[in-house]
Amino acid sequence: MAIELSADVLALLKDADSLIPAIAQDSSTHEVLMLAYMNKESLSLTLKTGNATYWSRSRNELWVKGLTSGHTQEVQSISLDCDGDALLLQVIQVGAACHTGDVTCFHQELEMERN
Amino acid sequence: MAIELSADVLALLKDADSLIPAIAQDSSTHEVLMLAYMNKESLSLTLKTGNATYWSRSRNELWVKGLTSGHTQEVQSISLDCDGDALLLQVIQVGAACHTGDVTCFHQELEMERN
Repeated sequence: MAIELSADVLALLKDADSLIPAIAQDSSTHEVLMLAYMNKESLSLTLKTGNATYWSRSRNELWVKGLTSGHTQEVQSISLDCDGDALLLQVIQVGAACHTGDVTCFHQELEMERN
Repeated sequence: MAIELSADVLALLKDADSLIPAIAQDSSTHEVLMLAYMNKESLSLTLKTGNATYWSRSRNELWVKGLTSGHTQEVQSISLDCDGDALLLQVIQVGAACHTGDVTCFHQELEMERN
């Protein structure tokens, strides 16, 4: 399977050679689950397979979400933002999105300091 | 007004000197509105004022969302992710989040290529 983006999609990206932040949102609960990064290969694989595939910045490799944990993300849709430099995935999340076991990675609330 | 982060918040950030992607989600509709970036000054201002304040990478300056357009974001809560390198804001969005006039910046859907 070729992991190349179509010319149509490439033309929409602001910079096809940089990492693009990708937000995963639960398509059912609408909870924002996590933010990860895609390069053009991982975006291509995600579009072709329907399984959310990111680029791991720590391991420096393609990362099929859930490949080891089983906590996969079945992608319902992907949208690009107006600047062509951020992605939003609507996903069916199997199990917990976060490696901590939490439903969402955004579980550390900061205290507002308004008086 | 000092625009310094508290030591508590600083300690939670993976890298306080880098830009942190910040997702704005409508606290009422749960729609993901946009992704922008914060540095520690803009995060501090957001926590203190309750008005979403980003760092504009194109203008290289603090960017109080809606200051010129009137399309402000009143922040209800801010959460940090498990890695300390992404933020999720729950906001009350006044007017359209996107400079195009769209409700959300994520209005360009990509075509899935699954067979």
